Amino acid sequence: MAAEIVNPRSDSENRDASEQGGGAAPLESFDPAFALHRGGKMAVQATVPVRDKDDLSLAYTPGVAKVCSAIAEQPELVHDYTWKSSVVAVVTDGTAVLGLGDIGPEASLPVMEGKAILFKQFGGVDAVPLALSCTDVDEIVETVVRLAPSFGGVNLEDISAPRCFEIERRLQERLDIPVFHDDQHGTAVVTLAALRNAARLSGRPLGELRAVISGAGAAGVAIAKMLVEAGIGDVAVADRKGVVSRDRQDLTPIKAELASFTNRAGISGPLESALAGADVFIGVSGGTVPESAVASMAEGAFVFAMANPTPEVHPEVAHKYAAVVATGRSDFPNQINNVLAFPGIFAGALQVRASRITEGMKLAAAEALASVVGDDLAADYVIPSPFDERVAPAVTAAVAAAARAEGVARR
Amino acid sequence: MAAEIVNPRSDSENRDASEQGGGAAPLESFDPAFALHRGGKMAVQATVPVRDKDDLSLAYTPGVAKVCSAIAEQPELVHDYTWKSSVVAVVTDGTAVLGLGDIGPEASLPVMEGKAILFKQFGGVDAVPLALSCTDVDEIVETVVRLAPSFGGVNLEDISAPRCFEIERRLQERLDIPVFHDDQHGTAVVTLAALRNAARLSGRPLGELRAVISGAGAAGVAIAKMLVEAGIGDVAVADRKGVVSRDRQDLTPIKAELASFTNRAGISGPLESALAGADVFIGVSGGTVPESAVASMAEGAFVFAMANPTPEVHPEVAHKYAAVVATGRSDFPNQINNVLAFPGIFAGALQVRASRITEGMKLAAAEALASVVGDDLAADYVIPSPFDERVAPAVTAAVAAAARAEGVARR
Repeated sequence: MAAEIVNPRSDSENRDASEQGGGAAPLESFDPAFALHRGGKMAVQATVPVRDKDDLSLAYTPGVAKVCSAIAEQPELVHDYTWKSSVVAVVTDGTAVLGLGDIGPEASLPVMEGKAILFKQFGGVDAVPLALSCTDVDEIVETVVRLAPSFGGVNLEDISAPRCFEIERRLQERLDIPVFHDDQHGTAVVTLAALRNAARLSGRPLGELRAVISGAGAAGVAIAKMLVEAGIGDVAVADRKGVVSRDRQDLTPIKAELASFTNRAGISGPLESALAGADVFIGVSGGTVPESAVASMAEGAFVFAMANPTPEVHPEVAHKYAAVVATGRSDFPNQINNVLAFPGIFAGALQVRASRITEGMKLAAAEALASVVGDDLAADYVIPSPFDERVAPAVTAAVAAAARAEGVARR
Repeated sequence: MAAEIVNPRSDSENRDASEQGGGAAPLESFDPAFALHRGGKMAVQATVPVRDKDDLSLAYTPGVAKVCSAIAEQPELVHDYTWKSSVVAVVTDGTAVLGLGDIGPEASLPVMEGKAILFKQFGGVDAVPLALSCTDVDEIVETVVRLAPSFGGVNLEDISAPRCFEIERRLQERLDIPVFHDDQHGTAVVTLAALRNAARLSGRPLGELRAVISGAGAAGVAIAKMLVEAGIGDVAVADRKGVVSRDRQDLTPIKAELASFTNRAGISGPLESALAGADVFIGVSGGTVPESAVASMAEGAFVFAMANPTPEVHPEVAHKYAAVVATGRSDFPNQINNVLAFPGIFAGALQVRASRITEGMKLAAAEALASVVGDDLAADYVIPSPFDERVAPAVTAAVAAAARAEGVARR
């Protein structure tokens, strides 16, 4: 939270760049985002001085040789004497970037840099954007495995489903550092936190709620799993072809697995057939939901319409029928924003050198995030603001404690 | 040169670490290098503010989407709107680290972090240490190719010979960003700069000098090539088995190539046989040279005994016979230190978005480095100090100009 902001690129360099950069200047007059992103949004800094030859001989040769030798003899010292345990690789292949889809690694970099500075700003975690030029599952897995010695954790980002599931699973098997696909688990943690508070507000236990998720991609699958682990009454997931159910013949392996632990009510047909009488709607699809379907939900329903920039149901429409409304947008109350989760989750995992991020750590993160709201709980305040300074410390502490409790902490 | 130094790790965190870090505290009382390296030597920082939701919506979603879309449409904009063009990957496999040899990727990290902060401190270049867990040439090449979208250049470091030659060559063929093995070319540039000034001091043109290099690894091969390109009279290279010559049957392909353009005098036998009457000795071997061999060199010889920490000939001994003596150590005059070259070489290449680093750019770097010494030239001052603030700007400007002249600049 106290990360310092500097701009190492001088005004004269910026001027040079816009004079020589071809089509850059018109873009910047067209939209203020371009001026902000010029030259990138991040830099590296030294945390030790190199002012004279004494500094140099301690930070570099010959002094550094003793540190290297010590790590060669006692490998776990790499955590003490390098930045490994404070740095996360933000890895993408650029195939599912925001709502833009497969735009490739270079075009994904502004998002990955943004992610990196959010890691720093909100969690004090160093992060390095690594946008890969390969999309093959084996190639991505091998590449990240080879990079792992330099990093304390891996945040997978904007990799399209269903490849993202296999990539994450295989990396978790191969590596002894946390591997976390934020589009899945970050979204799930924040959604669960908001749902816990909405349930508390309405005085209803999670076990009595039936939820419907629109979207069976990375986020939808992860939210469904997490809600089941948290003890939701029932959850049904709908993809473009309708509700995922055991009797569908067109399911991918991931969706077949989803069918095995969701939709205990055995609903089939379109999304609307599941929404009738449902207590919770969670939209992570980018589609739209007709007002009549929202009107058919149970009284006092919760509508989390998280598609960006256009929610599946406009909040004003949702409010006509729902007791609690949340979106993915910052200009409405109750923003479901991953930045509430991933910085603290990694900060907590790195603090105790966790070998992985367990289900228990994610559930603890959701509980800690929900608890920040405390007695201020209200229909328009079921989730804290990303700029609430209590959030990251609470999540960090809860995740670190859960890692210790689950036996994956190494300090 | 104006890079700011901060230490984001608070005292309380440091205390926690030393209390919990197992064997760490004893190491730190044993040697001051350990305290300096605790927690690593670098961090990431944001260069744009993220103070409130307006900042967030510009630096991240939804504002960032426009920047991504613009790059997807016009790929060269990645250089304008990300940090790509200011960041270099420092890539190693940990097989030839300092004089320590094959200590593996984790143990090499303190050196790679040191390199990264020198890039920043001396060249204003951001650099990220990437120590890979693979040593196979194909695997290293493929890994770096996949990482390339995120970086403006690749600095190969501490990869053992002869693999380093093939890895560099293949990466240069595959990538359109500079790929530079510093142990080869950085060393060669600084050596040539010192040699140019020693020759100027003695009033002898390079073409009249015969040089002998001890060591046919990465540095020895690169220095030999560069001296020939710079117009040295003759150069002979000796490995452990003696002088590399066309009549040797045991040469690797790299050494056979070396034999084809060096040792025009046709010397064979041990290093000593080449040193008799030679004008220049360049030691990059880690071995030792007997005093009698130094005594056998031509009058007014130059002895560059660059092995670290123990020069091949002690400077005091060398001074009995040689007109100019240089070492790799900071506690003697005339330190041949790569930090005089690589920060400015990459800064110049990145400034003009060079697609590669050509021979002409390296020769220009050596000339610029030599010229910093100017009228202060003396036997104990043939190369500037690493802390001479004129060095990096001079090298940067010369390399950028040479890139333009050679047609590899893209702006």
